[in-house]
Amino acid sequence: MAKEAAHAENLMDKIVSLAKRRGFIFPGSEIYGGLQNSWDYGPLGTELKNNIKAEWWKRFVHERTDMVGIDAALIMNPKVWEVSGHLENFSDPMVECRECNNRFRAGQVDVKDPCPSCGKRGTFAEAKMFNLMLKTFLGPAEERASTVYLRPETAQAMFVQFKNVLETTRKRLPFGIAQIGKAFRNEITPGNFIFRTREFELMEIEYFVKEADWEDAFENWQGEMEQWLKDLGVKKEHYEVVEIGEGDRAHYSKRTIDIEYKYPFGQKELYGLAYRGDFDLKNHMEASGEDLRYTDPDNAKDKFLPHVIEPTWGVDRSVLVAMLEAYNEEQIANRKSQGEDGEAEEDTRVVMKFPYWLAPIKVAVLPLSKKEELRNVARPLYEDLVKHFVTEYDETQSIGKRYRRQDEIGTPFCVTVDFESVKDNAVTVRERDSMKQERIEINRLKDYLAKKLT
Amino acid sequence: MAKEAAHAENLMDKIVSLAKRRGFIFPGSEIYGGLQNSWDYGPLGTELKNNIKAEWWKRFVHERTDMVGIDAALIMNPKVWEVSGHLENFSDPMVECRECNNRFRAGQVDVKDPCPSCGKRGTFAEAKMFNLMLKTFLGPAEERASTVYLRPETAQAMFVQFKNVLETTRKRLPFGIAQIGKAFRNEITPGNFIFRTREFELMEIEYFVKEADWEDAFENWQGEMEQWLKDLGVKKEHYEVVEIGEGDRAHYSKRTIDIEYKYPFGQKELYGLAYRGDFDLKNHMEASGEDLRYTDPDNAKDKFLPHVIEPTWGVDRSVLVAMLEAYNEEQIANRKSQGEDGEAEEDTRVVMKFPYWLAPIKVAVLPLSKKEELRNVARPLYEDLVKHFVTEYDETQSIGKRYRRQDEIGTPFCVTVDFESVKDNAVTVRERDSMKQERIEINRLKDYLAKKLT
Repeated sequence: MAKEAAHAENLMDKIVSLAKRRGFIFPGSEIYGGLQNSWDYGPLGTELKNNIKAEWWKRFVHERTDMVGIDAALIMNPKVWEVSGHLENFSDPMVECRECNNRFRAGQVDVKDPCPSCGKRGTFAEAKMFNLMLKTFLGPAEERASTVYLRPETAQAMFVQFKNVLETTRKRLPFGIAQIGKAFRNEITPGNFIFRTREFELMEIEYFVKEADWEDAFENWQGEMEQWLKDLGVKKEHYEVVEIGEGDRAHYSKRTIDIEYKYPFGQKELYGLAYRGDFDLKNHMEASGEDLRYTDPDNAKDKFLPHVIEPTWGVDRSVLVAMLEAYNEEQIANRKSQGEDGEAEEDTRVVMKFPYWLAPIKVAVLPLSKKEELRNVARPLYEDLVKHFVTEYDETQSIGKRYRRQDEIGTPFCVTVDFESVKDNAVTVRERDSMKQERIEINRLKDYLAKKLT
Repeated sequence: MAKEAAHAENLMDKIVSLAKRRGFIFPGSEIYGGLQNSWDYGPLGTELKNNIKAEWWKRFVHERTDMVGIDAALIMNPKVWEVSGHLENFSDPMVECRECNNRFRAGQVDVKDPCPSCGKRGTFAEAKMFNLMLKTFLGPAEERASTVYLRPETAQAMFVQFKNVLETTRKRLPFGIAQIGKAFRNEITPGNFIFRTREFELMEIEYFVKEADWEDAFENWQGEMEQWLKDLGVKKEHYEVVEIGEGDRAHYSKRTIDIEYKYPFGQKELYGLAYRGDFDLKNHMEASGEDLRYTDPDNAKDKFLPHVIEPTWGVDRSVLVAMLEAYNEEQIANRKSQGEDGEAEEDTRVVMKFPYWLAPIKVAVLPLSKKEELRNVARPLYEDLVKHFVTEYDETQSIGKRYRRQDEIGTPFCVTVDFESVKDNAVTVRERDSMKQERIEINRLKDYLAKKLT
């Protein structure tokens, strides 16, 4: 047990370290000592994250006949959060030190203990609810009237714009509205790398159905989410579908599931799927006075509020899980026979076995040495490939070290230009996982790679 | 002159109206009366905006050999804004009413007049500078120490992460760091639709060069920006490259240009290009104590701060300009001969002549009527096409009205399934701009469209 825990902690450390060392994810504002668990995506992390978002949009918006997307402002009219209940209920219990005004999660401190911040005793006031929304002030007057909030979720925009979307797209039930975007929560205890941050990104769908159809839709979406996990490279034994019991569900939800992932730091939420009934549309209709009902196109007298199935994916958690799943350490039995250069190196290779579609870099062009005659072949080849695949060029260090680097960032194909290439117009293509090498003519290379990569 | 102004105002009204009516852009939180000139992108606007961002990333990051991307947190350590000068200098002069605490842009009110808000006289305090950054509070203590800002620009992240990017990518000068993301400014007078909003999106590059090379790099980037405008569909006579004079430039900039567009509401900024010297890196190096110098790979003794060329594109302004340029009203001479249905309709068609790559929807599948036998051909065709192109299906209303709708949203190709189709397995493809129709066999259709659309 202790050994397992140590291994798990070790794995997180390795991922965080690899993320920084290879340019996936850097601590935010690092040169100024960071900022409370904020993170910036570096060159490779940005590509990885963009691949996730683009595939999600393609799959769930473009390739479906029952979905449209929106992209709403992060700052909405505060009335939205009053009606959604976030202003009143989206909060955690906190105790405040009357001496230094610092606040702590109730339960995190014992009120008889000294304040962890100023050290004084007996200074804690009674526990109060602390709202998790980040507020800011719009307009030149810093008054109550202009207090607004950074959205704590993306869902409300799909409800608030439901009527506009319905009227402009003339979609028929069942159909969904999809959105990708940032949300903000003033978490008391952010942590575990990009697992819980105060600024994060969501991919979310509000799927509108007739009430009678909610159970089928729910099951369909659970199936889609599990298929997505599979395509992200997540092994079935690494996650669990957890039914949220009646007492823990929102009062309006007849069914909610969490998809929990077995992170190195424990089994915790990754994605969620909730049946929200007509709760949101009903509240917004009542509060705004706008008729948000759907009219049956075959019977104009039949007007009703659609019910909603809501699948939610965390973008940053998808990145984290993709990295955890991809991480492999392998013993290399016989380097020489694999055409490596046989320099003194560790016998372990770290390889990120991302599914090809997910890999930040698809192809690396590696001339065997810096010699001009190799560069003359490799550079034009690179400049051609870069128009078709995300491609890197690297001519420094030994070829073995460069293979290791590409393995560590998960590049599916390394294209090596050697002295033979100058004569035979062919290159060696090395596949990441099998490390198998194949000799390919340069004029066939683009087709060869395109076929392998799609 | 008056007539021209009226026409221009009219054009903006038409664009705003079309944007809402067709689902490009909706007023933000509209059911609650909106929120101070905020806007939400609807289904078509989201596609249009995504096309712009995707093409930009492909062109300036993926297809180039000298560029990498990052995606940094919107909320950075406040020290960043102290060092960049934004905390001190990023402000507008304002006067505050001592009675009601509302603030007004200096010059917008005469201090001898009554307050436009509360109506009292003689209540104005002396003009003060008002910072344009939106602030919020991170962490459980709402104290000074945890006051942070929503970034007012995207550039600083590229400087603050310069060292991490350089070390992980091992890029050599010249190279650039690109980023797309939101920024926030508490503008005193937002307005003109999506031209000036408090929440907006930027596409930006910091391009690092040796000092001696800055002029060439500047000219190259100006060329890239003008090529981009051309590809966006912007006519040369609709924009002007304006040299910013020495007195108006930032003190560290030896050259800055604005690309100004002739909007219906006047000639104003669209994009910008600035030479920033080594101002930013120098300041961050001094303030953070981190060595941000670049080491010449051929001479490790030669360490220096690169100089910076900064091209900046507004995403929302790109959308606005793309819509203004695409908007056309055409007189239809003879509807019948164009195969339309000859119903009584206006003789003017509104057509958004987006370049094909920009169009939100590429193909519309339109069965001539709702008859089952047509649907049996059209539906499978649609379900096949949607896997390859962003495609819509529409079977309601007359074919003429449906052509008009597709013209108005800028769909390049309408595919009409008619009663002949059932027999000859062919469809009529109508091109948006020429309105020319061509009969294409269904089994050739995908290739036909792919060829036209790329």
